[in-house]
Amino acid sequence: MGKKDLLYEGKAKRVYLTDDENIVWIEYKNSATAYNGEKKAEIVGKGRLNNEITSLLFSKLAEKGIQSHFIKKVSEIEQLVKRVNIIPLEVIVRNYAAGSFSKRLGIEEGQKLKYPLVEFCLKNDDLGDPLITDDQIDVLDLASPEEVLVLKEKAREINSVLSDFFKEIDVRLIDFKLEFGKDETGKILLADEVSPDTCRLWDIHTNEKLDKDVFRRDLGNLTNAYKTILGRLGGPTHV
Amino acid sequence: MGKKDLLYEGKAKRVYLTDDENIVWIEYKNSATAYNGEKKAEIVGKGRLNNEITSLLFSKLAEKGIQSHFIKKVSEIEQLVKRVNIIPLEVIVRNYAAGSFSKRLGIEEGQKLKYPLVEFCLKNDDLGDPLITDDQIDVLDLASPEEVLVLKEKAREINSVLSDFFKEIDVRLIDFKLEFGKDETGKILLADEVSPDTCRLWDIHTNEKLDKDVFRRDLGNLTNAYKTILGRLGGPTHV
Ligand SMILES: Nc1ncnc2c1ncn2[C@@H]1O[C@H](COP(=O)(O)OP(=O)(O)O)[C@@H](O)[C@H]1O
Ligand SMILES: Nc1ncnc2c1ncn2[C@@H]1O[C@H](COP(=O)(O)OP(=O)(O)O)[C@@H](O)[C@H]1O
Ligand SMILES: [Mg+2]
Ligand SMILES: [Mg+2]
Repeated sequence: MGKKDLLYEGKAKRVYLTDDENIVWIEYKNSATAYNGEKKAEIVGKGRLNNEITSLLFSKLAEKGIQSHFIKKVSEIEQLVKRVNIIPLEVIVRNYAAGSFSKRLGIEEGQKLKYPLVEFCLKNDDLGDPLITDDQIDVLDLASPEEVLVLKEKAREINSVLSDFFKEIDVRLIDFKLEFGKDETGKILLADEVSPDTCRLWDIHTNEKLDKDVFRRDLGNLTNAYKTILGRLGGPTHV
Repeated sequence: MGKKDLLYEGKAKRVYLTDDENIVWIEYKNSATAYNGEKKAEIVGKGRLNNEITSLLFSKLAEKGIQSHFIKKVSEIEQLVKRVNIIPLEVIVRNYAAGSFSKRLGIEEGQKLKYPLVEFCLKNDDLGDPLITDDQIDVLDLASPEEVLVLKEKAREINSVLSDFFKEIDVRLIDFKLEFGKDETGKILLADEVSPDTCRLWDIHTNEKLDKDVFRRDLGNLTNAYKTILGRLGGPTHV
């Protein structure tokens, strides 16, 4: 399976075509970005760490019956995945108040929510990924009400499985962002990545942040935080 | 029924206690504010116009079976209303794209929506009245899911009645903001005001703006716009 033309390049990954029109080749970059690209850096090792962690989590999710685009890791920084048409929504799940939720609504970070919240943001960098309601999604024809229900159900299920994984390694899953897409048959699949770039992960005992907030808020060494996650998940922390 | 102590003062109105603990006295101010109080002005006549228009619309709504806090107009700038505990949500109904909806989601102003949208914002000036989802409202205990359904149903019904009123006077009801509160028995009542301060009203033929956008966007004479609305509604346009 050869790597062919670049299909598109995002802030964290490059997507390449392959010989198979239903399969794309994803390369994880070392770029770190925050605040909608306002803050940027190159962080050696980040691409590898996110590729390792995402591959590991997608494999673990598959074992629990949760299908994703993930096919296999093909190098330290590359994966093969099923090509999907990404639904232009960021699906956010929150177990504890943090980040934009805390800031927008004036709720202290770390407060446990009475149940996990699923929210949608319009995936649009120019607009700063604004929060969008279920009815707005329908009126703007971004997804049907039935699809919104499927996305919420899948997000809750993934949250339950991921929260358990992380709990086993003494990590609290505060919140995370998912992207879904439709494969060539129209089936909705979990896509993109699940990594410390897209999850808030706090050490269960110390509340130490082990995710991209280390970069966003200048809290220390990002690769050390990501290595801690990868190590606890049983992945290779050498290199 | 005498006017007693000032209960609170908002950006557009003052609320006074009366001898009856379940009735408050509302005085409409001449202050115009926009962009969460960033832009301000005193506009002679505005208080009277909003009081006249709101009184007229609440009376017309009552004729159609829609109950509100409104009891009666007691002077050119004053009303008696039932005292309620305001639910801290701005209930927004949109028939056409405009304002923050257009700006946040990148939709051209004036585009008709496939059906009327009901949205909620947290009523909190310090936070800039952020958009809030149904689940967030529940998780933050701002209103129960049943109450949210009641608010949506009432908002849609009010929209249907108001849209008809305005259509009869050649005005298109683009969008509007409502506030609801609970009376002493716990019943949810429409409260606050329904005026060109809280509705976007466009002339049906020319699309001329006849609402607070005239002030927000420096489009001309605000009181002339409000007088046009009051006049077409059959109200007194003298003074
Ligand atoms: N399976 C897939 N098929 C097609 N595109 C995908 C797939 N998984 C992720 N993508 C897309 O790849 C792009 C690159 O990823 P990324 O660098 O994270 O982008 P962004 O800058 O939007 O965060 C994104 O638009 C993402 O939605
Ligand atoms: N029937 C009512 N009982 C009690 N308070 C009310 C009632 N109707 C409106 N209010 C409140 O009166 C206050 C003053 O109104 P206004 O000047 O428009 O305030 P704001 O600056 O919040 O827009 C607001 O907090 C509004 O919610
Ligand atoms: Mg991304
Ligand atoms: Mg007001």
